Amino acid sequence: MSLLVVGSVAYDSVKTPAGSRETSLGGSATYFSIAASYFSQVSLVAVIGDDFMPEHVELLESHSVDVSGLERRNGKTFRWSGVYSTEDLNQRETLDTQLNVFAEFSPELTEEQRATEYLFLANIEPRLQTQVLEQMSPRPKLVALDSMNFWIDGSRSDLDAIVAAVDLIFMDEGEARAFAGEENLAQAAKRIHAVGPKIVVIKRGEHGVLVSNSGDLFALPAFILDRVVDPTGAGDSFAGGFMGMLAATGDLSTRGIRRAAVLGSVIGSFTVQDFSADRLAALSHDEITDRFAAFEKLTTFAGLDDGGPLPRGQ
Amino acid sequence: MSLLVVGSVAYDSVKTPAGSRETSLGGSATYFSIAASYFSQVSLVAVIGDDFMPEHVELLESHSVDVSGLERRNGKTFRWSGVYSTEDLNQRETLDTQLNVFAEFSPELTEEQRATEYLFLANIEPRLQTQVLEQMSPRPKLVALDSMNFWIDGSRSDLDAIVAAVDLIFMDEGEARAFAGEENLAQAAKRIHAVGPKIVVIKRGEHGVLVSNSGDLFALPAFILDRVVDPTGAGDSFAGGFMGMLAATGDLSTRGIRRAAVLGSVIGSFTVQDFSADRLAALSHDEITDRFAAFEKLTTFAGLDDGGPLPRGQ
Repeated sequence: MSLLVVGSVAYDSVKTPAGSRETSLGGSATYFSIAASYFSQVSLVAVIGDDFMPEHVELLESHSVDVSGLERRNGKTFRWSGVYSTEDLNQRETLDTQLNVFAEFSPELTEEQRATEYLFLANIEPRLQTQVLEQMSPRPKLVALDSMNFWIDGSRSDLDAIVAAVDLIFMDEGEARAFAGEENLAQAAKRIHAVGPKIVVIKRGEHGVLVSNSGDLFALPAFILDRVVDPTGAGDSFAGGFMGMLAATGDLSTRGIRRAAVLGSVIGSFTVQDFSADRLAALSHDEITDRFAAFEKLTTFAGLDDGGPLPRGQ
Repeated sequence: MSLLVVGSVAYDSVKTPAGSRETSLGGSATYFSIAASYFSQVSLVAVIGDDFMPEHVELLESHSVDVSGLERRNGKTFRWSGVYSTEDLNQRETLDTQLNVFAEFSPELTEEQRATEYLFLANIEPRLQTQVLEQMSPRPKLVALDSMNFWIDGSRSDLDAIVAAVDLIFMDEGEARAFAGEENLAQAAKRIHAVGPKIVVIKRGEHGVLVSNSGDLFALPAFILDRVVDPTGAGDSFAGGFMGMLAATGDLSTRGIRRAAVLGSVIGSFTVQDFSADRLAALSHDEITDRFAAFEKLTTFAGLDDGGPLPRGQ
């Protein structure tokens, strides 16, 4: 089964405590596509400028990403630059955003793209997300959405409309709280369910992920790394691994969703180990399975009965 | 086997988004003792003023806590008041601290107390923690320490001395980073190991716990609650459940340490569901085992092979 992603392809300039990198490959759809490519066939719909380098198209193609939906326009590719806090890598400040050709993005899907069974609407304007979803026919088996604070503050009614129409939503912790108007995460998830999505996936950065899926709550810590080089793209890589696994297996059971969340976390944990998609794009099958096993080792604990019943108790 | 705790018994006044409570039972050693009492025999060494209410001594006794080390002095009991952020329950501001009789605390152990096999040095001045440890004879099977930012900033050389002398240290995330001078938690844990403790337990509040135990890393998310009433005492209750389990089973294997961390989290999760020790002090054996099972359900995921091998991979 295959997976369609609509989002941004960009050039990023980032500064982190580990160093800095100018004009490197970025964008939500880029990270997502490469991450998902380890599990599933991916079709990418995005816009690039005439400055977009052939080697970056080739990188996507080397991951068997279908780039026929990568529209080239006159002008410059979307650019973002930001700096991460030395005290808290979860905090970053945007220094500059240049939408460039992304400002004119108006995705038109081909017949084949419209029939894709799994759809991921990466972080773009909610109005465009709706425009994409309306072109899908038949309705995909699963429609997932990513959002961010900017749209929560700026286009709330458009955002509500698309949130109501999707099956799964990815939000970071702060976004979930802001969108729901509720500090308690379990309650916030309930309010988001009430708007529409059956599956709510709350990304907590270095604190892991919380999945609320029709009454099934799943909490997973983040993988523990000795060194984080650049957090950019971690959330999009997480979503890519998650959705790639779902598209590949078709397993939407609670077990399947939990496993997808672990694989998303595995993939995202590689992304942050280097700048841009350098580490993400160079993964082997063995590295992925080894880190999945390491995740199990990191989080597993023996049941209460394995050590006998509770020693006392009143 | 039994467990000795030396720390504070206090009256707290707190304000949280859920409400407020004046002059209620608090203190690190109070929460610790009640939490540990569900698993182990506990002896408490602390100081109280002449305002300390008989009903609070009776509450401890009803949990079979040995209160013979509860020294009563002329003056008022230690008092603390604080307010929790409505945006982030992990953040609190201290409004007032009155040491009162706690300022004169100089713990002297009885012959029986000196021979206790498990020792918990709750958050008191590092110099006093050392004074207690020096009285122990023979050396306990396990000595654990809790600390806080105040001492990291104020009495660093005294703190270093006691950290070097213990087997296990509990620190919150910010304390671990400040003590180690290192933002990355895995690296911070390594630096703390290098000072002395074989087991480093990093408390992450609503984000769970990270245990670093001689090369074994264990990450556990916090239990997800629909409502948190008052976070006060969560960390001390966690430590109480953790140490109570170790003292009861004597199981210091990596499995045993992991299970203790889960039980600590279980106990701490009850504490925050009401003000003071109201919920903590009213637990049944079934409630503890049920929540342990709920913790397993919240965190368990199926192995990769349960769904067949990875669908693709390059």
